Amino acid sequence: MAKSRFEYVRNYELPDPIMPNAFIVVRIDGRGFHKFSDTHLFQKPNDKRALDLMDIAAKTVMNEYKDVILAFGESDEYSFLLRRNTKLYNRRRSKISSSIVSLFTSAYVFHWSHFFPNDPLKYPPSFDSRAVVYPTDKEIRDYFAWRQADTHINNLYNTAFWALVNDGQTTTEANKTLQGTDSKDKNELLYSKYGINYNNLPAMYRKGSICVRVDPQSIRLSLDDTDSETNTANSATVEIASSSRSAHQINPTPSGVDENDATPEDGDIRRRSKSVKKVKPYEGIDGEITILHEDIIKDKFWNERPWLTI
Amino acid sequence: MAKSRFEYVRNYELPDPIMPNAFIVVRIDGRGFHKFSDTHLFQKPNDKRALDLMDIAAKTVMNEYKDVILAFGESDEYSFLLRRNTKLYNRRRSKISSSIVSLFTSAYVFHWSHFFPNDPLKYPPSFDSRAVVYPTDKEIRDYFAWRQADTHINNLYNTAFWALVNDGQTTTEANKTLQGTDSKDKNELLYSKYGINYNNLPAMYRKGSICVRVDPQSIRLSLDDTDSETNTANSATVEIASSSRSAHQINPTPSGVDENDATPEDGDIRRRSKSVKKVKPYEGIDGEITILHEDIIKDKFWNERPWLTI
Amino acid sequence: MAKSRFEYVRNYELPDPIMPNAFIVVRIDGRGFHKFSDTHLFQKPNDKRALDLMDIAAKTVMNEYKDVILAFGESDEYSFLLRRNTKLYNRRRSKISSSIVSLFTSAYVFHWSHFFPNDPLKYPPSFDSRAVVYPTDKEIRDYFAWRQADTHINNLYNTAFWALVNDGQTTTEANKTLQGTDSKDKNELLYSKYGINYNNLPAMYRKGSICVRVDPQSIRLSLDDTDSETNTANSATVEIASSSRSAHQINPTPSGVDENDATPEDGDIRRRSKSVKKVKPYEGIDGEITILHEDIIKDKFWNERPWLTI
Amino acid sequence: MAKSRFEYVRNYELPDPIMPNAFIVVRIDGRGFHKFSDTHLFQKPNDKRALDLMDIAAKTVMNEYKDVILAFGESDEYSFLLRRNTKLYNRRRSKISSSIVSLFTSAYVFHWSHFFPNDPLKYPPSFDSRAVVYPTDKEIRDYFAWRQADTHINNLYNTAFWALVNDGQTTTEANKTLQGTDSKDKNELLYSKYGINYNNLPAMYRKGSICVRVDPQSIRLSLDDTDSETNTANSATVEIASSSRSAHQINPTPSGVDENDATPEDGDIRRRSKSVKKVKPYEGIDGEITILHEDIIKDKFWNERPWLTI
Repeated sequence: MAKSRFEYVRNYELPDPIMPNAFIVVRIDGRGFHKFSDTHLFQKPNDKRALDLMDIAAKTVMNEYKDVILAFGESDEYSFLLRRNTKLYNRRRSKISSSIVSLFTSAYVFHWSHFFPNDPLKYPPSFDSRAVVYPTDKEIRDYFAWRQADTHINNLYNTAFWALVNDGQTTTEANKTLQGTDSKDKNELLYSKYGINYNNLPAMYRKGSICVRVDPQSIRLSLDDTDSETNTANSATVEIASSSRSAHQINPTPSGVDENDATPEDGDIRRRSKSVKKVKPYEGIDGEITILHEDIIKDKFWNERPWLTI
Repeated sequence: MAKSRFEYVRNYELPDPIMPNAFIVVRIDGRGFHKFSDTHLFQKPNDKRALDLMDIAAKTVMNEYKDVILAFGESDEYSFLLRRNTKLYNRRRSKISSSIVSLFTSAYVFHWSHFFPNDPLKYPPSFDSRAVVYPTDKEIRDYFAWRQADTHINNLYNTAFWALVNDGQTTTEANKTLQGTDSKDKNELLYSKYGINYNNLPAMYRKGSICVRVDPQSIRLSLDDTDSETNTANSATVEIASSSRSAHQINPTPSGVDENDATPEDGDIRRRSKSVKKVKPYEGIDGEITILHEDIIKDKFWNERPWLTI
Repeated sequence: MAKSRFEYVRNYELPDPIMPNAFIVVRIDGRGFHKFSDTHLFQKPNDKRALDLMDIAAKTVMNEYKDVILAFGESDEYSFLLRRNTKLYNRRRSKISSSIVSLFTSAYVFHWSHFFPNDPLKYPPSFDSRAVVYPTDKEIRDYFAWRQADTHINNLYNTAFWALVNDGQTTTEANKTLQGTDSKDKNELLYSKYGINYNNLPAMYRKGSICVRVDPQSIRLSLDDTDSETNTANSATVEIASSSRSAHQINPTPSGVDENDATPEDGDIRRRSKSVKKVKPYEGIDGEITILHEDIIKDKFWNERPWLTI
Repeated sequence: MAKSRFEYVRNYELPDPIMPNAFIVVRIDGRGFHKFSDTHLFQKPNDKRALDLMDIAAKTVMNEYKDVILAFGESDEYSFLLRRNTKLYNRRRSKISSSIVSLFTSAYVFHWSHFFPNDPLKYPPSFDSRAVVYPTDKEIRDYFAWRQADTHINNLYNTAFWALVNDGQTTTEANKTLQGTDSKDKNELLYSKYGINYNNLPAMYRKGSICVRVDPQSIRLSLDDTDSETNTANSATVEIASSSRSAHQINPTPSGVDENDATPEDGDIRRRSKSVKKVKPYEGIDGEITILHEDIIKDKFWNERPWLTI
């Protein structure tokens, strides 16, 4: 088929490759999540359901993109580290950044009802993303340390803030009360006034969520550099996702969902589901990936995973 | 709170502004939609439900981003034109491109069940995006002409291809049959062998979908250049979405909306809903935007909408 | 010859194309020219020799790069406009910008002794450059208007400043005297106190230097888009330069060219020189290009040269 | 003075910072030097005068830009390494790349007559430049190894080629003779047929020129990161250059220079190699910088200069 005479406009699509052998971090960030969390009545200062949903969306990304070897999330943001030598999409910046944010968003909406079974999504949320390039492992470690330090700072503040608000202060008053306080002040306030030992709060809230592959085999494999643009997509997506869906629907007390499964069109899905039958709910896409809530600032985490910074 | 000593990694986030006064087109494209459409049993060569879903996702984008003044979609892709002088996100390339693809994806998954009520989504689909910059209105016209010419070329081919397949040819045979044929050949094949007058097929399939605002008032308004990064987000999002949600969930007993609204937490939503009360399901976000399936290559379309290429 | 195993480092040279069909302006700017002009005792507020040298360097650039269709200079800066459709170096930003600043610098040093025969260059001066991209002719007109307005503003200030200094004020006092004055004030000061009618000063100082090709034929030719990377270099360079050189050295007896050419090494030069025989000293590179000191802000200049903004 | 209404065109000058903490290499390359070397009758395969001129131009760059910590030259190209943490011009790509190529070019023309006292420059030569960014010291070592391997490959070829041509072959025949030969073949040809032991040829031709600072003090100083955009310019420029100028111009009987010139070719190199204590004209700008012709591929060079890859 002859190309049209308008084809020339393609020439305006300029190349945007990221330089070789540098680390790429894609960070996605919720747009308007203050309003979104209000509208959807997220619990404050932390809503475990919302954080779990973020984590499952991050896992979806890591399952699809094997070259994402580490992710860290807090609140409405998530950062994805691509291995240094990734050839994903020939390192095209837009392609990498947009594909990841799109899949993350998609998984967030797709899995919403599992985590919020009684709170239907009221409008489609969205995230933005950017790809940042770092030359060495030092910056990578500092990048994740930066995010985890931020998690701590925000969570301590929010915990104190909501304790005050729940105690009767207006948000304005609570802000004022906390103005000029440092970490120690806030810890003391929480402990003396509300009997809260900050360090005993769930690690998920204090440390954020770290996604890593349990089995470095897959990493080693991917370090072979044999992946091309065509094979980076995880061909297991359908299976994984279908099992995820199963998870939603088979779910111990799957309310109205079962009716849906009864619809004839779903026949082939059920059949396909067989192959992943033994996968437990929401562990389908957990397979290789685990979520940790531990310190990422000190050496231990990194020493145990030397493949992250190769 | 003092900033952490890791903060310096922010310096690696380099600016990526798009030059002023040039047109920006963000094109999103389905990733792996061949498999996705197979898995979800899309009708071939065109599945109206899937195209309608693409259109509603595009409308969601246009409702949120008033500076998107035109969109064109076909198959699993959509192109969004931002007005020449947009200040959206200070014209930051990543921010614009990623926010649009994320919202599009989100809306696609969010509205899926409305268009495929009996076919639950089996896994989260995703799209990539890129922002392309064009200096003048000539390239803009040619860009959209390029996409519509492409729609025609693909649809004619696919129509002939699936006619052959439905007639008993294997896909390999059908491909072979069509090899080397031109438009006239395919038209004749369709007509003589299958009695299909290609030009009588739905315009949606032959011309793609054009989204424009009905009322140029809003455009004129936005041409004032008074919008800043903070106010570009459409504050009507919640309303729109809440009415959309109602559409999904209350269907076919829309009274259910009230039940929902009866929950105390939903108070402000209910109040807000008043203003969009008369809007019927799925017309809420249609309000200002209309979808056309007409020629975008000739002058007529553009002459009627001079504000597009100012 | 086998490539070395180090060859991979080439992959770090990333593409930097400028988008098609947009105007490119390369602006070069003297580095440390305050000190340079002091060291070389430039006359203040304007040194005609220095400005003439800038102009000849600009002409050299335009002779070499036929796609440079307009240039504007003032003080120690020069702006070069490349025609909208230039294919020069495949529109690679670095290549275009660096080649122009290098040739300009080279010509500046090369021709120095002609304009400053008694003031040898004390150290090698340098310039920086940047390429700026503009989508339409409006910005191009405004760009050159901006530079000419700047010329006026600076020259009026400097004229008043040096009048005061020559009248006995220190530079600090002169600066203070002028603080807060507008154009009218400075004009009046010059006229009432020093009898200087600003508008009667040489146009070169007030308007800057505009380089254009006299004969638009060459433009029309270049608009054919037939030029490739290889043929953009002006093959006439050697001839032009050799005549220029002659000018330097043999001046004031231009017949001396032949004597010079008589040196055996110069054989092929002499032969080549024939074709430019009738060209007088320093008119060699003037051939197609003329330098104007006129208004570039109003329409007249542009209306007379429609090819500039095609 | 109020800014003009055209000022807005400045907004089209977009930022182009290079990411922090990555090595920057600026490589300049002669434009049309095949013709330039023919026109100026360079000796083949190597013209020591031309190489010395390249080296002095490189030194000028290193004297001006203290953050250039290493340079390597061969033929008509030179590569400049900026220290990893350079803040030069806030790491603006265009500014760095253009300033270096401009100063190099300027110095090349400025010093021409010293190296070619009897062969006046016939036209202004020019160079292009590009800035390439490398994340780690490994790529930096490989980059310079790449250039030195290239030097060897080219020089061996050219030496054999010109031996054949001087022996009576046409250039076409010589090319043909060498087609398909490897290094060993060429070495043998040179030795058996022309009695040339390639390894005994001057190291300058076989290894290229390496410029490094003798005294790492200046490096250590510059590693303090205290330099700002304003103070990166070497304030000693004028002095240095003026002493150079003295050499050229005041010296009617250029004392030391003549001595230097008296040695057939290598004299001044030898003397310079010994030490840089007795700095004579043209050694003024040698002060801190020395030129080596040694192996840069093996570890020794780098182990002796750990500050290069910090």
